[in-house]
Amino acid sequence: MVHQETVQLSTTRQGEMHDITGNVQAIVSASGVRAGVAHIFNIGSTACVGAIEFEPGLEADLPRELNRLVPPSRDYGHEQAWHDGNGHSHLQATMMGPDLTVPVRDGAPVLGTWQQIFLLECDVKPRSRTVMVTVMGE
Amino acid sequence: MVHQETVQLSTTRQGEMHDITGNVQAIVSASGVRAGVAHIFNIGSTACVGAIEFEPGLEADLPRELNRLVPPSRDYGHEQAWHDGNGHSHLQATMMGPDLTVPVRDGAPVLGTWQQIFLLECDVKPRSRTVMVTVMGE
Amino acid sequence: MVHQETVQLSTTRQGEMHDITGNVQAIVSASGVRAGVAHIFNIGSTACVGAIEFEPGLEADLPRELNRLVPPSRDYGHEQAWHDGNGHSHLQATMMGPDLTVPVRDGAPVLGTWQQIFLLECDVKPRSRTVMVTVMGE
Repeated sequence: MVHQETVQLSTTRQGEMHDITGNVQAIVSASGVRAGVAHIFNIGSTACVGAIEFEPGLEADLPRELNRLVPPSRDYGHEQAWHDGNGHSHLQATMMGPDLTVPVRDGAPVLGTWQQIFLLECDVKPRSRTVMVTVMGE
Repeated sequence: MVHQETVQLSTTRQGEMHDITGNVQAIVSASGVRAGVAHIFNIGSTACVGAIEFEPGLEADLPRELNRLVPPSRDYGHEQAWHDGNGHSHLQATMMGPDLTVPVRDGAPVLGTWQQIFLLECDVKPRSRTVMVTVMGE
Repeated sequence: MVHQETVQLSTTRQGEMHDITGNVQAIVSASGVRAGVAHIFNIGSTACVGAIEFEPGLEADLPRELNRLVPPSRDYGHEQAWHDGNGHSHLQATMMGPDLTVPVRDGAPVLGTWQQIFLLECDVKPRSRTVMVTVMGE
């Protein structure tokens, strides 16, 4: 059994995080899948998805640490192609990855109590984001 | 065909790695799936799973390098919520990710000769860990 | 429905990136799967797969940034076992991860316009690489 839906989001700035756990739960519920997996994928190369304890402290910490490790700069090779100042956005998103897969059991995503699913905007301007969720199982 | 089982682990300290390849192999074998994938997921936000050549050198290198890149500190925003000194644990686990998917072929996980599946404890105190393994295929 | 095929690659140096999007598209097409997922996995512990805008700037940026964050060194514990100067290769590959899963819809992988699937060689000598692609769905 395969069920696919997309989640549409609007972001306003680099480092903005969205908690999409509720969206994924609703899609899993609509799928009718009782046991299997849910795959979450950001379409596009300057945002990422992952799992985190979604609270204001880490919401600030994660993008700040990514900017410390892979800082904004005009010196990336990517600048020579596009001149849009988002070389670090591409690198951060690639290092974090566009996809997350979580188990589905008893018709719901399996997560820890303090474990949520996020989308992180890595790009330097507001973007429309499409996240595709694929639920597979029986 | 979907088969789900959990692996229970006890960890004693930050940076402790467990080789769970044998557990995953046993679950794949019990599933009866001959071709497909095995999805490995740590339930909780301060440990991660991945693939590595599991040997004592890298067992020391990986957590030490993660602590160098995202060091223990009381200055993370996460501290303001919880004061439990594990902000870096959350960030490391989120950056590494809670999930790994490996192919299944001929009824076994497909891995390189020097490629094993690990759980890495990122939290600062002993924890009980539950890893859910979902095998899907035919 | 499960369909598995491997992609064979030869790499010549550390930091070499291969765009394998066309290979994955061909395998998805051959599978007959219309909706589901494609799982891409590098067999071996010193290369990684992921998603990126595949253009010459980022092709140089990504391996250079990984070498800055986790530099070549003879001081890694891994050296004590093998003395082959690729401790950083193992660490980079483990941090990036060996696997990527992308959605399949209308019989094709779902990707952004500027989002491709890559293999990155992290090892310090030429290698033969085998990437296993598993397509599942209906």
